[in-house]
Amino acid sequence: MKGTKERIIEATAGLLMRQGLAGTGLKQISSQSGAALGSLYHFFPGGKDDLAADALRVAGRSYLHLIDDYFTGRTDLVEATEGFFEGAAAVLEATDYADACPIATVALEVASTNDMLRQVTADVFAEWIDVGAQRFAEMGVSPDVARELVTVTIAALEGGFLLCRAAKSTDAMRVIGRNMAALVAHRLGR
Amino acid sequence: MKGTKERIIEATAGLLMRQGLAGTGLKQISSQSGAALGSLYHFFPGGKDDLAADALRVAGRSYLHLIDDYFTGRTDLVEATEGFFEGAAAVLEATDYADACPIATVALEVASTNDMLRQVTADVFAEWIDVGAQRFAEMGVSPDVARELVTVTIAALEGGFLLCRAAKSTDAMRVIGRNMAALVAHRLGR
Repeated sequence: MKGTKERIIEATAGLLMRQGLAGTGLKQISSQSGAALGSLYHFFPGGKDDLAADALRVAGRSYLHLIDDYFTGRTDLVEATEGFFEGAAAVLEATDYADACPIATVALEVASTNDMLRQVTADVFAEWIDVGAQRFAEMGVSPDVARELVTVTIAALEGGFLLCRAAKSTDAMRVIGRNMAALVAHRLGR
Repeated sequence: MKGTKERIIEATAGLLMRQGLAGTGLKQISSQSGAALGSLYHFFPGGKDDLAADALRVAGRSYLHLIDDYFTGRTDLVEATEGFFEGAAAVLEATDYADACPIATVALEVASTNDMLRQVTADVFAEWIDVGAQRFAEMGVSPDVARELVTVTIAALEGGFLLCRAAKSTDAMRVIGRNMAALVAHRLGR
């Protein structure tokens, strides 16, 4: 069974992904997690920012594992790239466009308004790019090209989440996936 | 001199871009625009959502003109694509990473929480892609490929804004620009 702190973090991460930081209140986190407000302050004396920082780090790490697992041991990077976007489209459809990037909504909100949380989101994105670039390099891509391709892949995925959630359609994600696969093929000289 | 309604919309658009919808209150809009709260309700009887919808449409249209003007009459689409991302990077640097997409922050906040505003953001993105695809097609790209390339370009730009605002660095935008230019060249058979 999950501990109280874990339930609080999980509820917070879900709410931040769906409605952002300013739209998420401690009362809502309390009711969603089944933890008393006093518990929230016990585990996170710094209040909402403190809790949000932890929730973003935990959500970022679980996404990191997704990226890591997905690209580990692949033999065809072009196919894997297209499949990566297919997977994102499938998750959007399965969750009525609610489950997308756990970091992006907050990252845009805090970029100009909260430097502590901005740095947390920057660290999460940097880790995703690092681990993705390692996996691409293990498939024989030169380190520089690997880092470039993963940077573009993450950016296109984020932009895809944005366009698809707004339109309630995964058409854009599939177009993006095919074109990212074409870019990878082109950069690998295929 | 600008009218009161115009000043209210402009102040709202700027606040939405920098801090999102939930973080923006009518009092702040009032003080930023120099318009009394009563004026806000006079022009926007539906309150914040009503005002946000107008601000998003106006900001979306001014961005539409940017895209339209930028890609009109270009002779080299590959060069124009790289320059488009260079321009975005320059604006980020000049505004300390505050001026980016006027729609994205709100689009992510409302996608699962406010269907009226979600539809407004979807319409804005669809218009950008329509006009961009027309300009690409005028440069001799087939309509289908034009629409695909513009969809990927907008997505990559949005993802680039996200990564760059989080990191307070334009490195990602320049990497994305070079790779989008390479994708365009590849798709045009160059």
